[in-house]
Amino acid sequence: MKKFILFIILLFPLIAPAQELKSPNGNFSLAFSLDASGAPVYSLTYKQKMVIKPGKLGLELKGDAKSLLNDFTISNVSTSTFDETWTPVWGEVKSVRNHYNEMAVTLNQKGTDRHILIRFRLFDDGLGFRYEFPPQKNLTYFVIKEERTQFAMTGNHAAYWIPGDYDTQEYDYVTSRLSEIRGLQAKSRTQNLSQTGFSPTGVQTSLMLKTDDGIYINLHEAALVNYSCMHLNLDDTNLVFESWLTPDAKGDKGYLQAPCTSPWRTIIVSDDARDILASKMTYNLNEPCKIADTDWVHPVKYVGVWWEMITGKSTWAYTDQYPTVQLGVTDFANAKPNGRHGANNANVKKYIDFAAKHGFDGVLVEGWNIGWEDWFGHSKDHVFDFITPYPDFNVQELHEYAKSKGVKMIMHHETSGSTRNYERYMDAAYQFMKDNGYDAVKSGYVGPILPRGENHYSQWTINHYQYAIEKAAQYKIMVNAHEAVRPTGLARTWPNLIGNESARGTEYQAFGGSKPNHATLLPFTRLLGGPMDYTPGIFEMDVSKINPNNHSHVNTTLANQLALYVTLYSPLQMAADLPEHYDRYHDAFQFIKDVAVDWDDSNYLEAEPGEYITVARKAKKTGHWFVGNVNGEKPRTSTVALDFLDPAKKYIATIYADGKDAHFKTNPQSYAIRKVVVSGKSKLSQWCAPGGGYAISIAEPANPQELKGLPVLR
Amino acid sequence: MKKFILFIILLFPLIAPAQELKSPNGNFSLAFSLDASGAPVYSLTYKQKMVIKPGKLGLELKGDAKSLLNDFTISNVSTSTFDETWTPVWGEVKSVRNHYNEMAVTLNQKGTDRHILIRFRLFDDGLGFRYEFPPQKNLTYFVIKEERTQFAMTGNHAAYWIPGDYDTQEYDYVTSRLSEIRGLQAKSRTQNLSQTGFSPTGVQTSLMLKTDDGIYINLHEAALVNYSCMHLNLDDTNLVFESWLTPDAKGDKGYLQAPCTSPWRTIIVSDDARDILASKMTYNLNEPCKIADTDWVHPVKYVGVWWEMITGKSTWAYTDQYPTVQLGVTDFANAKPNGRHGANNANVKKYIDFAAKHGFDGVLVEGWNIGWEDWFGHSKDHVFDFITPYPDFNVQELHEYAKSKGVKMIMHHETSGSTRNYERYMDAAYQFMKDNGYDAVKSGYVGPILPRGENHYSQWTINHYQYAIEKAAQYKIMVNAHEAVRPTGLARTWPNLIGNESARGTEYQAFGGSKPNHATLLPFTRLLGGPMDYTPGIFEMDVSKINPNNHSHVNTTLANQLALYVTLYSPLQMAADLPEHYDRYHDAFQFIKDVAVDWDDSNYLEAEPGEYITVARKAKKTGHWFVGNVNGEKPRTSTVALDFLDPAKKYIATIYADGKDAHFKTNPQSYAIRKVVVSGKSKLSQWCAPGGGYAISIAEPANPQELKGLPVLR
Repeated sequence: MKKFILFIILLFPLIAPAQELKSPNGNFSLAFSLDASGAPVYSLTYKQKMVIKPGKLGLELKGDAKSLLNDFTISNVSTSTFDETWTPVWGEVKSVRNHYNEMAVTLNQKGTDRHILIRFRLFDDGLGFRYEFPPQKNLTYFVIKEERTQFAMTGNHAAYWIPGDYDTQEYDYVTSRLSEIRGLQAKSRTQNLSQTGFSPTGVQTSLMLKTDDGIYINLHEAALVNYSCMHLNLDDTNLVFESWLTPDAKGDKGYLQAPCTSPWRTIIVSDDARDILASKMTYNLNEPCKIADTDWVHPVKYVGVWWEMITGKSTWAYTDQYPTVQLGVTDFANAKPNGRHGANNANVKKYIDFAAKHGFDGVLVEGWNIGWEDWFGHSKDHVFDFITPYPDFNVQELHEYAKSKGVKMIMHHETSGSTRNYERYMDAAYQFMKDNGYDAVKSGYVGPILPRGENHYSQWTINHYQYAIEKAAQYKIMVNAHEAVRPTGLARTWPNLIGNESARGTEYQAFGGSKPNHATLLPFTRLLGGPMDYTPGIFEMDVSKINPNNHSHVNTTLANQLALYVTLYSPLQMAADLPEHYDRYHDAFQFIKDVAVDWDDSNYLEAEPGEYITVARKAKKTGHWFVGNVNGEKPRTSTVALDFLDPAKKYIATIYADGKDAHFKTNPQSYAIRKVVVSGKSKLSQWCAPGGGYAISIAEPANPQELKGLPVLR
Repeated sequence: MKKFILFIILLFPLIAPAQELKSPNGNFSLAFSLDASGAPVYSLTYKQKMVIKPGKLGLELKGDAKSLLNDFTISNVSTSTFDETWTPVWGEVKSVRNHYNEMAVTLNQKGTDRHILIRFRLFDDGLGFRYEFPPQKNLTYFVIKEERTQFAMTGNHAAYWIPGDYDTQEYDYVTSRLSEIRGLQAKSRTQNLSQTGFSPTGVQTSLMLKTDDGIYINLHEAALVNYSCMHLNLDDTNLVFESWLTPDAKGDKGYLQAPCTSPWRTIIVSDDARDILASKMTYNLNEPCKIADTDWVHPVKYVGVWWEMITGKSTWAYTDQYPTVQLGVTDFANAKPNGRHGANNANVKKYIDFAAKHGFDGVLVEGWNIGWEDWFGHSKDHVFDFITPYPDFNVQELHEYAKSKGVKMIMHHETSGSTRNYERYMDAAYQFMKDNGYDAVKSGYVGPILPRGENHYSQWTINHYQYAIEKAAQYKIMVNAHEAVRPTGLARTWPNLIGNESARGTEYQAFGGSKPNHATLLPFTRLLGGPMDYTPGIFEMDVSKINPNNHSHVNTTLANQLALYVTLYSPLQMAADLPEHYDRYHDAFQFIKDVAVDWDDSNYLEAEPGEYITVARKAKKTGHWFVGNVNGEKPRTSTVALDFLDPAKKYIATIYADGKDAHFKTNPQSYAIRKVVVSGKSKLSQWCAPGGGYAISIAEPANPQELKGLPVLR
């Protein structure tokens, strides 16, 4: 159910230059004015403290000396309040309140007969604002040279950042002072198959910050549609961030046609880090769902033929016979198999059997289609056709087999960044999915983008990702796009976008490892815009056990891996490890089997970026609760009240915790499972290893007898 | 019927560096060798005279210091001869002989373990050669920095050229010495909606040349597929042309993957200019037809709602109400019509009636679909949807109306250069055509190409044109692509490509005019690669009579306009002028009604580039003959023997000639029509005005009585 309240409070032209807007709860205050040059300036205070100092707003246009930077006068200020509650198709909570006060400032530019509008929405958790370009004679088509939106910091805050890059987001987070970004930039730019940096002080959003007086600030954007993705570039003398858009092949940063708007620029603020994690502001700034019937959109827990390729045990490619392959030219049918092809019928059936046995919804298979012999690094246009399987992968047979076991196959479309090629095949590829019983696709954009010169996050390519999502919706197909632009809450509008990668995922644990505190940062940054297909659940941390030539180490404990299913919210969760590893640790695997992927409620119990996150979630339908804690590199005792439970009821909590000697590096597979009786009055004190954590499943006993003999947690 | 003879004459490794190949008739001799640096060198002699001096061959690769330029040894030379006769789906002649001697030279590069092959085909009308890259380990993917193919001139020849440009071919031809190109380049670059020059001595192919001793040389390319279009850049100190490929957005000139080949580089040579016009070498170097069933491909004579927009009398756009329009946003249904929209039901019916009355096959209508209000100059991505008509254009009603009159509607897809947008709509647009009875489309690429940074003639865009042709073939749709890359004989392989513009067409006569000798050059240049939709048949040369604000003048006589239907071979011919002008000159219009568009035979009777062309063609089915003469700026008497006719038979020739006082500028509408009796023994002597010409239709009388009283031409 949706409630909708809209009051027009104020609507008249103003002479006084300083405008103020308060959040519904009064904690935030936004000030807007024009400076002496007629440039728009805004600042933000939180609980009487300034959190964003006065900073300019505007856009520099190409071939337009005056641009949209100054010489403005305020011609109109209109304020309103808005309050609705909407129901997400999937999510962390059953319903979302969208409550804000709005101020829309119309600015006339002297001498150009042009006007723009800046719309501010002040929520109880922060500020969103955007540029709007109404229809008008003197501003029709225009090219953005740079957006000049400033975020002026009040001090040399701690920042949790990854380096700015037009082509990858898959970096480990760096924690440093703002002033240290420049010195750390080069080191932070670890190798990637596609990467394009631009500035020694450039960083990506969502950017997490913490002030010395304990205020948490997050900078990001919402509703990125037909616009270039925003980075932030720091003036580290004045500690002012400025927007830095992703350019196209010509170096231009956006082609706009009025009427149109920019995405929202977002500033989420709280003195309690948990509020940042719980914020739904990014979703709220997106448009309501545009899919009329969403019955076909559903959460998915899955396994897949994947980790064995990532670790190097098996291959995506079918043959090693040729120095290079060409679709339509290379004879795959008569090629000599390399003997290590993962996506073969027998192996896939093994995964289907495993999925069916343990109650998983789906099986992803990568490397099923011809072309993987030389699929990246060649700027190859016609790289895949998305419809032709290798000789040892029988689409119809496997579909029938999976169906007979109650499991769905999950499609994989690696594009190798060749967007035109993908669009050319898209209808055929989606239809092929429908014809063969697939309703979800993992798409990928590894390597440089084609058309050559475009970037992963330029307007052109963002338009492509959106095209793929909307066309998939026409086919009732769910999309999980990897290497696409970081999400900005668009899943509210297009809930068939059930996942994205767009950050450093578990695969990097097989490519040299990620930092042990990585999962304590993702919910503060990447996840604010939408769920991540992080592919957790690795039980064997020594990758050389799978592939003797790969000496990478998974830098978490096994208990931490379990906790990820709760701490990294996603309607799409993979159990990424090999079936044999789950068989070996079947008691721990029980948690992955039990954990829900869709929720009625979420309570963030503890949170500090880079250090720890503890969250409790209530499963849809069953009402069972699940708790997850991920811990950073420092050992720590987590202390949480289970007051989200009914104090009058008794539940059995199964706690999957680090063993006493557990350590992400030296002893990651040490864990202990215990069952205790809990209620809403219980308090848990749980030690967490370096890179560790814990996971808890909580359910009322089916029979009170089950409580007998179990210790009680007070 | 197809005859196919292939002899392997020679196949063994050679030590001797100099290789020689002769044409079947012995007139040509090709010499190939390696110079001291191991660079390939070739030269060409014709009738014992050198016509191409020794010049180098090779490719410069990106990121590869050694490239494919030198350090070669000859590892194999294989020669063969080939002779076949193939039947074109449409054309100037009933069957085409493809007869050549071939030499394939395999070159190993020292120190790289790479090999390439240069394949020479020597015909009786000239030389074709290309680079081939066989499958091999050390040459898989490579990027062309520049192709280094030289065409070394033997002297300071006369050249008939247009300036090199990555984005337009629509220039008037300049006739000058090679040494004068540099000085004339700037002036030759008249304004165009998209243009990108690159060098003061850059010119386009097909380039026509004439030596001082009367040898005609034409340089062009054949079978341009998945490669960048070649320009020629002149070293005007040494008089050596070198290939200059069209770059992509990054400045790269080609992304290749072995096995693959370059297009053919062609050198057509004769001491008789007529042989250049009659050459089928460009087609012969293309692959045979790839469309299994070609029954649906047919020649088309058509009229259209077009010239009234070109001259500015009416508009493509429906409304002037908005400063800018957006598909899906702008409300066209309720927009205020501007009252000048050409593609309205009533006007289209007028053209359908006219077509039906005079026996035309089709009616083209431009400006029928929404979006023309601001369709160019804005780098607009979502510019057209190709399926949504304006409110005053009823697709179904007009289709039914045309069908009832035995006329087919011709579709128009202007892309505004937005290639991704066109590809996204292509299936829907072609299906829309099939659903509404269209079987031919005129496509257009006006303005800069999207993706931004790409050029009209770069590999990326050429790949798009080819995609459009092949997809159209799937739908059994014929394509007439405007502003696409100049044709290179691909219509042999894809005969549904029934036309191209790719040169300065008649529209320029309404944009300031073309040179009076323009049509005497097109058959020597642009038409060698394929037919042109030149849109001839303008009877009113004073454009201000149509639109008082347009003072352009059509720089030909009316008789010249008639001759174009014969001299500019195309299976697609438009009668481009307004119906009321044809009504006014109905006697001259009879020739356009009568003239065929598909031929069993063609005899080039007279030819000199820039001066005159006279051709006689025998119509398919009827066996009637048609003669056309176009004259340049100098008045001249054309003298031709009608020995292509049966000497024993008597025919009636209807001669449409310039009036005695005719002149392209001062008196273009002066013409005289006379009937005479002719036979194969007749000789015609016909005066041609400046910018004039004549057209003749020749048929045996249905009844010998018709000959009575007619003068006899001896």
